[in-house]
Parts: sequence; C-alpha cells; structure tokens
Amino acid sequence: MSSGIGKVVALGGGHGLHATLTAMRRLSDEVTAVVTVADDGGSSGRLRSELGVIPPGDLRMAIAALMSAGGEHEPAGGRDRWVALLQHRFGGRGALAGHPVGNLLLAGLTEELGDPVTALDAVMELFGVPGRVLPMSAVPLNIEAEVSGLEADPRISRSIAGQVAVATTPGTVRRVRLLPPDPPACPEAVEAIAAADLVVLGPGSWFSSVIPHVLVPEQLAALKATSARRMLFVNLAPEAGETSGFSVERHLHVLHAHADDFRVDDVIVDAGSAPAGRERDHVERAAALFGARLHVGDLAQPGTHVHDPEKLASMVLTLCEEQTDGYAVGAVDRPPSADRLG
Amino acid sequence: MSSGIGKVVALGGGHGLHATLTAMRRLSDEVTAVVTVADDGGSSGRLRSELGVIPPGDLRMAIAALMSAGGEHEPAGGRDRWVALLQHRFGGRGALAGHPVGNLLLAGLTEELGDPVTALDAVMELFGVPGRVLPMSAVPLNIEAEVSGLEADPRISRSIAGQVAVATTPGTVRRVRLLPPDPPACPEAVEAIAAADLVVLGPGSWFSSVIPHVLVPEQLAALKATSARRMLFVNLAPEAGETSGFSVERHLHVLHAHADDFRVDDVIVDAGSAPAGRERDHVERAAALFGARLHVGDLAQPGTHVHDPEKLASMVLTLCEEQTDGYAVGAVDRPPSADRLG
Repeated sequence: MSSGIGKVVALGGGHGLHATLTAMRRLSDEVTAVVTVADDGGSSGRLRSELGVIPPGDLRMAIAALMSAGGEHEPAGGRDRWVALLQHRFGGRGALAGHPVGNLLLAGLTEELGDPVTALDAVMELFGVPGRVLPMSAVPLNIEAEVSGLEADPRISRSIAGQVAVATTPGTVRRVRLLPPDPPACPEAVEAIAAADLVVLGPGSWFSSVIPHVLVPEQLAALKATSARRMLFVNLAPEAGETSGFSVERHLHVLHAHADDFRVDDVIVDAGSAPAGRERDHVERAAALFGARLHVGDLAQPGTHVHDPEKLASMVLTLCEEQTDGYAVGAVDRPPSADRLG
Repeated sequence: MSSGIGKVVALGGGHGLHATLTAMRRLSDEVTAVVTVADDGGSSGRLRSELGVIPPGDLRMAIAALMSAGGEHEPAGGRDRWVALLQHRFGGRGALAGHPVGNLLLAGLTEELGDPVTALDAVMELFGVPGRVLPMSAVPLNIEAEVSGLEADPRISRSIAGQVAVATTPGTVRRVRLLPPDPPACPEAVEAIAAADLVVLGPGSWFSSVIPHVLVPEQLAALKATSARRMLFVNLAPEAGETSGFSVERHLHVLHAHADDFRVDDVIVDAGSAPAGRERDHVERAAALFGARLHVGDLAQPGTHVHDPEKLASMVLTLCEEQTDGYAVGAVDRPPSADRLG
C-alpha cells in the first residue's frame, strides 16, 4: 500500500476527487482529502439551508472513496456494508427522499460535536479509515460567477449565484468568486498542505470544485509555500454547463486567471483530450503559465470520460520516481523532449 | 459485570425498557431487548409512514441503553459520543426536525441490508455493544383499542386506532389488539426467550408497550414454554391517558385479561405505589392470577415516577439468589410470609 510516496493531499470535490482519492490510496497510507464546500444543490443544498451545516455531500463521497480503498482495521461486518450505508439514498417522494444516510450522519455529528472537522475525524475513526477528510473551509461557501452569452450582446456579463446555477448555465463562465469573499481556510488543511510530499488538484467540475481551492487566501498561500510536489489533473472532457466547449488549454487559462501566482510542477492531461501537433504547443505554453511540465498519458476508463484510478496511480508513481530534473516516462505517450516545457 | 445470572431477555418499549436494560446490564453481559414496534407518533411515525420501515425509535433507545451501560470494546472516540449521536435530534422547523440521527441510521441500514434484525445486529457490532436488540415483529404493527367513557353512556365502547391516539385518549382503555392480528413474531426473539435464564416484562406504557408482548402468538407461546424465570415489573404510577387512575391491581387485571394463560414467577411493585393492609391482599390475589409471588420494594428514583436501575438490579439479584422455593429478602419491605402467595 504505502510505496514511499509519502504524505499526499488531494484537493477537489465530487466524483473527480473520488477518483483521485481511490488512485492516491494505492500509493500512500497517508492521504488527506481537502474538499470544496460550496455545493447548494440536492441533499447538500437542503441540509445547508435547513441546518446551516457545511454541505456534506462531497465530504461523504471522499470518505467513501478512502473507505472503499481499504485500511488496516476492518469495521465490524466489513467495510463494504458501511460504504453502502453512507451512500444509501432514501427514495420515495417524502421529506427524506434523496438524502444519503452519510449526509445525515455527518450533519448530525457536526451539530453534536460542534464542528465539521471533529465530526469528520470521528467518522473516519469509527470506520477505521486511514487518512483524513477535511473541508476547504469550516463555513458553508457560496459560488458566484460572471457569465457571458446570456444577453443578446455577448460582451455583457451577468452575475449568477449558486453552484447549481453556475454548473448549469447556458452561458459561458468567465470568472467565479466565493462568498463570503476571502473565506477562512481550514487550519488542518493548511497544515496538511504544508506537511505534504505530494499535492494533487483536480480533476472535477472546474469552476465549482477545482478553482475554488485557489480562492481561499490562506490555502493558496499554503499551496504556494509547500515544498510538496504539485500536480494538476485536467478534466478528460469539457462538462456540459460550466466548461462546455472548453479546450484543455482553456481549462488551464481560466485557472491561471484566478490565481496568477499559483505554481504547479506537473500538468497531467489524458491523451484522448490532448491535441496533437502545433496545438499541443499551446497546451504546453498554458502549462508553463504555472511553471509546470506537461505530461500526456492514457488515463481514461475506456469509452468513458472518467479517470481510471489505476492508470492515474501509475502515472503519478512514474512521475514521482523520475528525477526532479528528469523527464516524463512510462505512461506518457510522447517523446520526453516534446512533453517538457520551461 | 456478569454475575452468574445468565441470559436475560427484557421485553418492553420506550423509557421503561431503557431503565430495565440499564439495570439488567449490571447483572449480565448477555442481555437481549425485545421491543414493541407499534409506535406511530413523532419521528418513528413519520419514518414508518414515509419509508414503510418498522418504527425505529424504541429500538434506538434500547441500543442507547445497552451502549451506555458499557462493554468490552470501546468504539473509537468513546461510547458517550456515539450514544449522543444516536440520540441527537435535529432541531428547527424543517423536514428533518425531530428526527434523531439513530432513527435515520436504523431506517437507512434496514433499507440497505434488507431486514431490521440484520440492521440492528450491524449497529450493535459497529459500536461494540454486547447483547442484542430485536423487534417484537419484523413488520410494523398498529394498535387498536376499545375505549369507554367517550360517549354519554359509559357502557358504550369506541374503537380508537393508533398508538398515539390510544396513549392520549381521555377515555378508559378496556382492551387493545394488534393489527395485523396475530402478527408474526421475530424468530430471533422467540429463540432468545427459549434460551433465557431470566425474562423481564415492563415497566412501560401498559397498553402500548407492555401488553403487546403477549399479543404476538408465537412470542406468547415462547413466554409460556420457556424455563426462564419470569418477572413482571409494574409501573410506579398510572400514566396520564392510557392508564389514568389505574391501581397496581388493575394493571395486573388488564394484562391478565389479554392473555389469561400467561404465567410469571414474580410480580414486582414499588413500595410507593403498593397499597398497605387489606388492599395489599387484592394485589397479591391479582399477582396470583399469573401464578406469581408479589414482591414489594423501594424501586423509584427519589421524588420521581422513574425506576432506579440500581435498585431494580439489586431487587432482581436478590430474587435470583434466593431459593426457588424460598422467599423474598433484601430490598423487599414486608415479612416474607406476607409477600408470598400461591
């Protein structure tokens, strides 16, 4: 399980983070998830508005990912049973319909113990899950976006509020911000980033799960200061709604536009979404905005737009095993010289 | 902890059963709770009507009682934390208001695992709680009562349906029945009764938590057939609504009227609620309907109508330690000869 890759921090949210965590647990026993808490839809949205808690959905999914990956202590009855419970969603059309049990458990435990970090640690401990799941901020956040293309005049932007509204806008998202602005970071997340050997960001809903991680000032400062290797995973495909029609290059540009002093060591792109030839050079230049080298590899589950955890893990391991001043090998599908930049 | 008292089965529901379980755990590591599942009020009522599950409230309280009493394996973070979580009730005025987390956990786990007994066993195992909590029946039950005193003519009875309606009727409950009639017993409860060394029934809401236990035919048959010693705890005081104005003697008469071939070894009554002198003889005669000896002792928490678990445990231990053909000693406040009957 632990392969000398050391302490890993994975930043993100939703299904993208689930895949990254599954991959990272193949490489390390010490994985910390740092999760966006700006969701306002579904069960999470109802719980934050009813109880004032941070939206638990993405936190629950991160716990399920780390739990599924196994650990030293098997909870009574086997971990599959408890993963299934956390993910079990009440059906029907009643007051509970759509709530996963894990969301209710996290909400209740947060109320009972007084803060979300203590509640998350307690759940991890109860089920014997190695690692840690932390919120990006201990307060619920909101996302607001400037969106163009909603008016006849394409130069006019409108402000759209709420994660669901942003994720499903028919317009083009230009910029997002968090409300409250400059929210407090989670101190435990800041510490984990400082102590990490490897920090990975993405994949995930770009504007609502990935970019928010550089919009929390103390967390951005920690990401800039850490001596950890930093890797950025770009989505396999644009997402209907928030990144509809976005190229790989554009994903990189919009992230850079939100934090122009944020640096990463490696930008990792799936071969199926990376352009060839001259256009590849544009992607390399976009990666260079972060001071990063571009790595292209086979990362998708065949026939899907979903990252394959095993391929992800193998790519990360390959990159970590090469010399810092070396070059991409293994899963990378282009000659090393062409994959390097800067 | 275990004092040679052997396997104990405690039958009841609600707060009465909580007290009995707390007491029995002082005497045995092998305590099985068998819990009424006819509640249709509060969180339990909402969950059974929304999800079709058996009402989890009394089951949750029984788990909390056994968990609070301790065990060999302390769950991560200490059992107090998890008891508090199970009992934590969402506040406010939203869709979740009034639901204890433990009820939602049991409902979700029952849906996920397919049946309530597996779900209850799983929760007990997760939290390292010794003993077992079982429903009286694996299907949700309803209570219907014949109630007099609701019409101008006191001889006219009306049928009142639902546990809440029965418990709060301004009339006088004459008789209760379960719907569906002759419901299936829980096979694991029947087995536990057969294998028990001691079976205790009550205290609790007499018509809605205690009497239902003799209305499940297979369970009644098990109660009649078991070689266990059988003890009946009578409530400390009549309960507003269902047993308003009831004497100890009348509690015994109405139970007997529902199952006239049900026998117990010991009827245990608090000194504060037992009449003295000639009226005591009536109570002894009522106990004799069950073939039981009457024992009177100090059982209440001072200044309340709540059983003190320590006093209960001490009374039970005293009775178990005397010879089968002996007489009541210790906490019993009358000379042995007067406490024996039949």
